[in-house]
Amino acid sequence: MEDGEQREWGAKAWTYLSSVRSLSPLIQCITNFVSMDLTANTLLSAGASPAMLHSPNESPDFTPQVNALYINVGTLSDNWLPAMELAAQLASKLNKPCVLDPVAAGASRFRLKACLDLISLKPTVIRGNASEIIALAKASFASTKGVDSSHDSTDAVEAAKSLANSSGAVVAVSGAVDFVTDGNRIVGARNGVPMMQKITATGCAFTALIAAFVAIDPSHAMETTASALAVFGVAGELGMETARGPASLRAHLIDSLHGLDQTAVISGVKITAI
Amino acid sequence: MEDGEQREWGAKAWTYLSSVRSLSPLIQCITNFVSMDLTANTLLSAGASPAMLHSPNESPDFTPQVNALYINVGTLSDNWLPAMELAAQLASKLNKPCVLDPVAAGASRFRLKACLDLISLKPTVIRGNASEIIALAKASFASTKGVDSSHDSTDAVEAAKSLANSSGAVVAVSGAVDFVTDGNRIVGARNGVPMMQKITATGCAFTALIAAFVAIDPSHAMETTASALAVFGVAGELGMETARGPASLRAHLIDSLHGLDQTAVISGVKITAI
Amino acid sequence: MEDGEQREWGAKAWTYLSSVRSLSPLIQCITNFVSMDLTANTLLSAGASPAMLHSPNESPDFTPQVNALYINVGTLSDNWLPAMELAAQLASKLNKPCVLDPVAAGASRFRLKACLDLISLKPTVIRGNASEIIALAKASFASTKGVDSSHDSTDAVEAAKSLANSSGAVVAVSGAVDFVTDGNRIVGARNGVPMMQKITATGCAFTALIAAFVAIDPSHAMETTASALAVFGVAGELGMETARGPASLRAHLIDSLHGLDQTAVISGVKITAI
Repeated sequence: MEDGEQREWGAKAWTYLSSVRSLSPLIQCITNFVSMDLTANTLLSAGASPAMLHSPNESPDFTPQVNALYINVGTLSDNWLPAMELAAQLASKLNKPCVLDPVAAGASRFRLKACLDLISLKPTVIRGNASEIIALAKASFASTKGVDSSHDSTDAVEAAKSLANSSGAVVAVSGAVDFVTDGNRIVGARNGVPMMQKITATGCAFTALIAAFVAIDPSHAMETTASALAVFGVAGELGMETARGPASLRAHLIDSLHGLDQTAVISGVKITAI
Repeated sequence: MEDGEQREWGAKAWTYLSSVRSLSPLIQCITNFVSMDLTANTLLSAGASPAMLHSPNESPDFTPQVNALYINVGTLSDNWLPAMELAAQLASKLNKPCVLDPVAAGASRFRLKACLDLISLKPTVIRGNASEIIALAKASFASTKGVDSSHDSTDAVEAAKSLANSSGAVVAVSGAVDFVTDGNRIVGARNGVPMMQKITATGCAFTALIAAFVAIDPSHAMETTASALAVFGVAGELGMETARGPASLRAHLIDSLHGLDQTAVISGVKITAI
Repeated sequence: MEDGEQREWGAKAWTYLSSVRSLSPLIQCITNFVSMDLTANTLLSAGASPAMLHSPNESPDFTPQVNALYINVGTLSDNWLPAMELAAQLASKLNKPCVLDPVAAGASRFRLKACLDLISLKPTVIRGNASEIIALAKASFASTKGVDSSHDSTDAVEAAKSLANSSGAVVAVSGAVDFVTDGNRIVGARNGVPMMQKITATGCAFTALIAAFVAIDPSHAMETTASALAVFGVAGELGMETARGPASLRAHLIDSLHGLDQTAVISGVKITAI
C-alpha cells in the first residue's frame, strides 16, 4: 500500500515537473548574492524562467507579469528589505504565490524581525532548515549557527506545525529527512544525498524550485512543495553517482535535473504521509 | 565564394582572439549580480582582464585606465544606475569603447528609461535578444517575458537597424541566429547551440566578450562584435560535444574558450553578410 | 634537513585542516559579489561554515558568534564600506581574528584609502598579490592593473615586510611563489598551478580559507596562513591532473579540497623558511 502511495506521489511529481517544462513559469527572484547563479541555473534546468529583478522601482510594473515570487533573505540589508516587502505585498494583492526562504532567521534581531514581517505578508510557502524554522516559531534570536542548521529536521516538526498554523503558510523543513506541513497534515520526502549540504546555496535553489512548482498549481501548495523537494533530491541522487566531490555534484545535479525522465522521477521519488 | 568569405571571417576572428590573448585588455564591468562569476571567467578564459569595479567613487580614477567598459543592467536598482551613467559618460569623453547589455529592457518603465538614458550616452555596441532590441527600438514597456526572449531573433532585424541608426551604435541581436548591424550592413553568425540558453548569464558573458574584442580594434566594432559572437558560439559547440546537460556545458564552454586554437576558429566560425 | 622541515610543515598543515573539518569554524564573510559563490564553496569543502552576513544592522548581534571575520573589498562601494569597518571594529574588540583581502588596492584613491582605513583596524592577516601589497606599503594609487598583478610576487618582499611592521598584521603575498611574513620571518609556499590565475576569485577564496585556518589557532597566524596557502595549492595541483581548462580546474580544485587526505597533504605541501 505504501508502494502504491509512493507511486502516486511519483506520478504527481512527474506531472508537475512536466508542467514546469511546458509552461515555463516566470519566477521573480529577490534573493541573496551568493545563490543567484545556482538559483537561476536550477530554475532554467527545470524548465522555468527566472528573473532576478528586485528594485522597488520595477516591481509595480513587473510583479503583475510573473507566475510566482521567490524571496530569500540570505544577504539581507536595510536597502533590500523594502524591495522584498513591496514585492510580497504586490504578490499577495495579485494572488500570486510567494515562497520565502528565511535564511539564518535567528542570526540577528534585525533578521528575525525582517523574516517575521515578511511572514505577516502571507507567503504561500516557507522553506527553511530546522534551526531557522525553530527560530521563527519561537520568534527567538540566536537559535542558529550562521546559515547551517544546528538542529535535526525532525526536531522541528512541532515548530513547523505551529508556524504553519500561525502564518497560514505551508512550511517545509529540509534536512536528513525533508518534510512539509500545512499545520495539520505532514508529508515526508526522503530524497537527496548528504553531500548536497557541502554545496553553497542548494537550500536556496531548492526553495526557488518550490516557487516554480507552486506556480503551476497554487491551490495545492503542499503537494507541489513536496514534489519539488523530492525532484531536486532525485536529481542530487543521480548526480551523486558520478560526483567526485561537492563541485562535480553541483554540476551533475543541474545536468540531472535538466535530463530527468518519467521513469527516474516515478521510481525515484520517496514521499510518504507521516 | 561564400566559403571564401567565411574563411576570411574565420581568419579575422582568430586575429582578434589572438590579440585579446596577447594584449589582455582591461575591461571594467558594471554588471548584474547573477552573471559576475560567469562573466569574469569568460573574460579570463579569453585572455582579457576583467575588473568588477562599479562605484562612482572609483570610476573617475579607474575608467581612464581601462581598455573598454561593459555595462549590463540585469539587476538594476536606483543606486547602481548613477554608477553606470557616470562610467558611460567617462568612457564617452575618453573615447573608450562602451558595450551595453540592456537585459529585460521592456520589463518595467524604470528599466526602459534607464536603458534609453544609457543609450543616449553613445555606447559603441548594444547587444540584446530580440525582445529587448524590439522594446528599445519601439521605446515600449512590456515587450519581454522577463529576461528570456519571446521573439525570434529574425523578428528583430528592422528594430535593430532602426536602433543602430537612431543611436549610432552597432547593434547585435542574439538568438537562433545571431546578427550584427550598423544600421546599414547586416552580418549573421550561426554558431552556438540551443542549450546555451539553459545556462544563466551566457548572454551577459557574450556581451562582455564583445567588449574585450571591441577593445582590440574600436574602429571596427561590427567586425569585432561578429567575431566575438562567433568565437563564443564555437566554444559552445565544442563544449557541447562532451556536455551532459547545462552545467557541464557551462564548464566545457569555458574550457573550450580557453583552449581554442587557430584551426578550430577558422574552420568553426560561421559568419556571412546577409 | 629541508625535507624534514617540509614534512614538519606538512604535518602541521594536516593538523590545521583536520581541525577545520572537525570544528567547522563559523566565518563571517563580507566579500565581493563576484567571489561569493566560490568563497562559500571553498569554505564548505574545507569543512568550515561560511556566513555571508554583512549588514551593519546585524554585525552587533552576529559577529560575537563567529570564529573569524573575512573582509574583501573587491566590489567596494560607499554603502558597503561602513559595514566592513563596523565588523572589523567588532572583531578587533572581541579578539576575533580578521583577515583582509585588499583587492585592487591601488586602483583608485577611494579604494586605497578604504584599505588603509581597514588596515588601521588591526586585521590579523592581509593577503594580496604583489601589486596590491606594493600599493599598500607605498600608500600609492595606481600601482595595479585592475585586479590582476603587474608585479612578480618576489618584487613584493620588502613591501610585505614593511606593511607587516607598520600594520602589525601577518602579510601574505600570492603569485608564482606565495610567501608569508610577520615583518621579521618569511616563509615561502610553492604549491598551486598557473592556471588558477585564469579562474576568477581564486585569490578571494584563498584568503577566505586563511580565515578558516587562522580561526583554529589565532596565536599562530603565520603558520596557519602558510598552511592554508599550501593546502589550497595542493588541491589545485591535484585538480589540475584531470582539468581540461579553467572551469574544470575550478570544479576539480573544490572536489580535491573536500577529499584531501593525510598522505596528499603531508607529501604535497611545499613550505620552507626563506
